[in-house]
Amino acid sequence: MTTEVSDGRPRPGRRPGRRPGAADTRGEILAAARRVFAERGFDKATIRGIAREAGVDPALVHHYFDSKEGTFVAAMRLPVDPSSALPLILSGPREGIGERLVRFVLTMTADPAAREPLLGLVRTAMVNEQAVGMIREFFTTAILGRVAETLNVPPLRIQAAFAQLFGVVMTRYILRFEPLASADIEEMVALLGPTVQRYLAE
Amino acid sequence: MTTEVSDGRPRPGRRPGRRPGAADTRGEILAAARRVFAERGFDKATIRGIAREAGVDPALVHHYFDSKEGTFVAAMRLPVDPSSALPLILSGPREGIGERLVRFVLTMTADPAAREPLLGLVRTAMVNEQAVGMIREFFTTAILGRVAETLNVPPLRIQAAFAQLFGVVMTRYILRFEPLASADIEEMVALLGPTVQRYLAE
Repeated sequence: MTTEVSDGRPRPGRRPGRRPGAADTRGEILAAARRVFAERGFDKATIRGIAREAGVDPALVHHYFDSKEGTFVAAMRLPVDPSSALPLILSGPREGIGERLVRFVLTMTADPAAREPLLGLVRTAMVNEQAVGMIREFFTTAILGRVAETLNVPPLRIQAAFAQLFGVVMTRYILRFEPLASADIEEMVALLGPTVQRYLAE
Repeated sequence: MTTEVSDGRPRPGRRPGRRPGAADTRGEILAAARRVFAERGFDKATIRGIAREAGVDPALVHHYFDSKEGTFVAAMRLPVDPSSALPLILSGPREGIGERLVRFVLTMTADPAAREPLLGLVRTAMVNEQAVGMIREFFTTAILGRVAETLNVPPLRIQAAFAQLFGVVMTRYILRFEPLASADIEEMVALLGPTVQRYLAE
């Protein structure tokens, strides 16, 4: 068993001259988590490894962020922790799930504070292979795999639904094609809901 | 009427020390076109303006690239000129149009030589507002607007279909989620065809 101590390497996230203290611990852990997720990917990263990189006890990482997923969500400043959001969306009648998913994604991304970290992650992924790997593992493991399992739908169908929603968010907020960029959320729900429903329901 | 002469400004695309000659004219026009499209966008750019920027007669631009669209396609090294590809896809029975469009997009992007310039354009768009404007105008004017008009379908529905196909290409070739990244083209046609069909047919 490895002893949980700092390995003594310089910490790029810790600015020289800053006084260490309790107030910084959470930020130190998040900076360490960003380095570990970038280097190891989501699947291979561990709370233990993040704690070691931050020079703290793993219990402290659990205390602040609960799980590896929660640590990733906080480190990437993502707006929603899928482990709390997904059960709400996936529960309820199966026949409304397409509309609920479309409404959730479009309502969440309508808020710039929620949208910008997501778009930032996508921008990084476009030019950085490490980031792509990290995002791919987080999405397929923590989000899409869980949806596939809960709904008992083949992963390819889940990913077709993801591609529709991802494409809409990109077209709406990056490419800003009109009329899609200004379309009312409920109009989009009516248009896209049946598509997502078909992928998830058959 | 403006006289079609060089305006005497330095040409960033013309490297100093390179000997001018007929062999370079096509490349000079394309370099000029890239500057004009970036500065003016697709809609406001003109063959006349591109010729002026390149210091050639507009007839020469027409001779090499036929139209403004053809000039854009060559300047951006796009794999397909929509003015020749679209009529083939849009003709034929209306009930097969979803499958034909999905098959066309996935077959074209399966070739790296066709895919890379497209992905390059998207990468640029992620970080560059000028590029976004240029791409938005080219797609909505030269591709999606033409499809909407030919099929007599509201632009929002065309853009929902575009978002599905764009999202699939991104998920397949940038994010590389499995199993979608390795899925057989005909399996994808069977899965996505009805979605595109529904957007374009109702």
